[in-house]
Amino acid sequence: MRGAAGRRSLREDLERWGAGAVLFLDMANIRYLTGFSGSDGALVVSGTADLLLVDGRYTTQARGQADGLEVREYRDKVEGIASALSEGGWGSVAFESWGMTFEFYEKLRGRLPGLDLRPLGDDLRRLRAVKDDEEIACLKEAARISREALLQTLPLLRPGTEERVLAAELEYRLRLLGAEDVSFPTIVASGPNAALPHARPGERRIGEGDAVIVDYGAVVKGYRADETRTFFVGDAGRELKDVYEVVREAQETGIAAVKAGVSCRYVDDVVREYIVSRGWGSYFTHGTGHGVGLEVHEYPRLGPLSEAVLEEGMVVTVEPGVYLPGRGGVRIEDMVLVGKDGARILTRSPKG
Amino acid sequence: MRGAAGRRSLREDLERWGAGAVLFLDMANIRYLTGFSGSDGALVVSGTADLLLVDGRYTTQARGQADGLEVREYRDKVEGIASALSEGGWGSVAFESWGMTFEFYEKLRGRLPGLDLRPLGDDLRRLRAVKDDEEIACLKEAARISREALLQTLPLLRPGTEERVLAAELEYRLRLLGAEDVSFPTIVASGPNAALPHARPGERRIGEGDAVIVDYGAVVKGYRADETRTFFVGDAGRELKDVYEVVREAQETGIAAVKAGVSCRYVDDVVREYIVSRGWGSYFTHGTGHGVGLEVHEYPRLGPLSEAVLEEGMVVTVEPGVYLPGRGGVRIEDMVLVGKDGARILTRSPKG
Repeated sequence: MRGAAGRRSLREDLERWGAGAVLFLDMANIRYLTGFSGSDGALVVSGTADLLLVDGRYTTQARGQADGLEVREYRDKVEGIASALSEGGWGSVAFESWGMTFEFYEKLRGRLPGLDLRPLGDDLRRLRAVKDDEEIACLKEAARISREALLQTLPLLRPGTEERVLAAELEYRLRLLGAEDVSFPTIVASGPNAALPHARPGERRIGEGDAVIVDYGAVVKGYRADETRTFFVGDAGRELKDVYEVVREAQETGIAAVKAGVSCRYVDDVVREYIVSRGWGSYFTHGTGHGVGLEVHEYPRLGPLSEAVLEEGMVVTVEPGVYLPGRGGVRIEDMVLVGKDGARILTRSPKG
Repeated sequence: MRGAAGRRSLREDLERWGAGAVLFLDMANIRYLTGFSGSDGALVVSGTADLLLVDGRYTTQARGQADGLEVREYRDKVEGIASALSEGGWGSVAFESWGMTFEFYEKLRGRLPGLDLRPLGDDLRRLRAVKDDEEIACLKEAARISREALLQTLPLLRPGTEERVLAAELEYRLRLLGAEDVSFPTIVASGPNAALPHARPGERRIGEGDAVIVDYGAVVKGYRADETRTFFVGDAGRELKDVYEVVREAQETGIAAVKAGVSCRYVDDVVREYIVSRGWGSYFTHGTGHGVGLEVHEYPRLGPLSEAVLEEGMVVTVEPGVYLPGRGGVRIEDMVLVGKDGARILTRSPKG
């Protein structure tokens, strides 16, 4: 639950965690719980009152965005947090174990030697996993803008266009269509570059017969679309066409496996096994997907090591890929909403 | 020192740190020391050999970029690092105290209970602070592209243009002119939004009499330009014009104070005191500047709490601002190269 309701709900967990308060440093969690969208700050949620701490760059913005919440300005972040925790007088305070650096932990402990700092992992990582209607509407709108921008950019997907120009044009279209930002730096990877799952677009010109991977997305009210399409420019040859079919079928199989109650590892399993069964297993070098929302990669992960279970209202990606070093690659990714009986696809750009 | 020379130089520090190896997780440091530009991985530098660890998305890319360095693929990051450290057989391993989360530290300690993990702070933060000629050339080229893009975008700086359209156009121009990315999400803040130092560009249309803050930069080979200009659209009124002069003079005073051997706090002091002397002290709500390079904010900080000293070859920003809530604001920022006898300005866009 977002905002004040989410903070109230956290209060009920405090006893279970044996903590008098929770200290948040993860800016996506802070945005989720307060509405404040700045790049730095801290939030304390306790049994009695909540407090948003920011530096001087953000005081005015935080007061405007985090309506009704007490906002306090700090000059030094550790000092500001230490004072607030000290005033609160709690014996133990929980925190996001992945949201605090070792250095920050040591400094805070140095300032508050008597305080019991309790690391929480998945308990707090799960906070944003299930999306409400408004969040889903933002993700759908982000997906709609993404599709529009891609369709407007497709005429440039032809031999001679530099990868970086295609990426620039796509990001420009995203912004003009209403994206407040791009979800992550756009990937346009052509020819041999398509064998690098996370290639950055460069000066390479798209060539006849290339596979071109485009991985991109729009941001709407902080919510990040994430979609990948692979296009062939002219005749990409037998091998890449075969790979395309395998990835497309693996992705469909994965999406068909998504529903509430299914483990994330199971979805990865069926996708991976399908690709293995078709002989390309050693070229699928990453996980099958991830949650997406205020962050482009968030809880849960869909991979061989995941211990998460899909729940109704989660939004996750399904994105198998096969990469042939030196020759090219194919990845197809959709963002899907987990339902009781199956998945609903949110990203609707044309494939192939 | 970058690349292999930098790794060799680190070896000489191992004894002083009482460590057999250094584990790097900070991706900017890893890029600096290896050339690998991916978004995830780890680097171990030891007295004998170095090892770059990446996940399957990055294996091909890492082998191509980190020429001559051993690259190993992991499936699970903690496991991969633990194996490598275990094989190395070192009794103690240093790490970047700000580069490791508390969670990661606990997991690694759990896997290697006998290992003495030694947190290093400024010793490793300083690593990239002094730039070599090639790095300075990248920053100059990034500044040149930034200026060109801004000049091409200025015709849109007129009443009626939405902030987000101006930002989209500026980022588009940056990309077409050769930027591989934007240094950070472009800030275009007009009218009352200019009172928010880190505003994100929105749907507000620039109005007659607005101050418009534009904070942006191009990335060249990983190096990030950072420049801010404030423009008046029509007559911004007496108060904002006065503020502009104060900020401009404070910034000139700050740049004049920059030279090797001067403390970063001193530069902040002279800027702050100037603004205080002109009566706007309580509206200058952030530090004076920061180092810039592979990261847009890096060592050293120029602020009231900084303990760093400027050295020849550092590149830092000088960026005072005065923000009047509800009314507007002014920030002027240049990126300067620290020399023996003074500063050389790298960002050359027209002011005012």
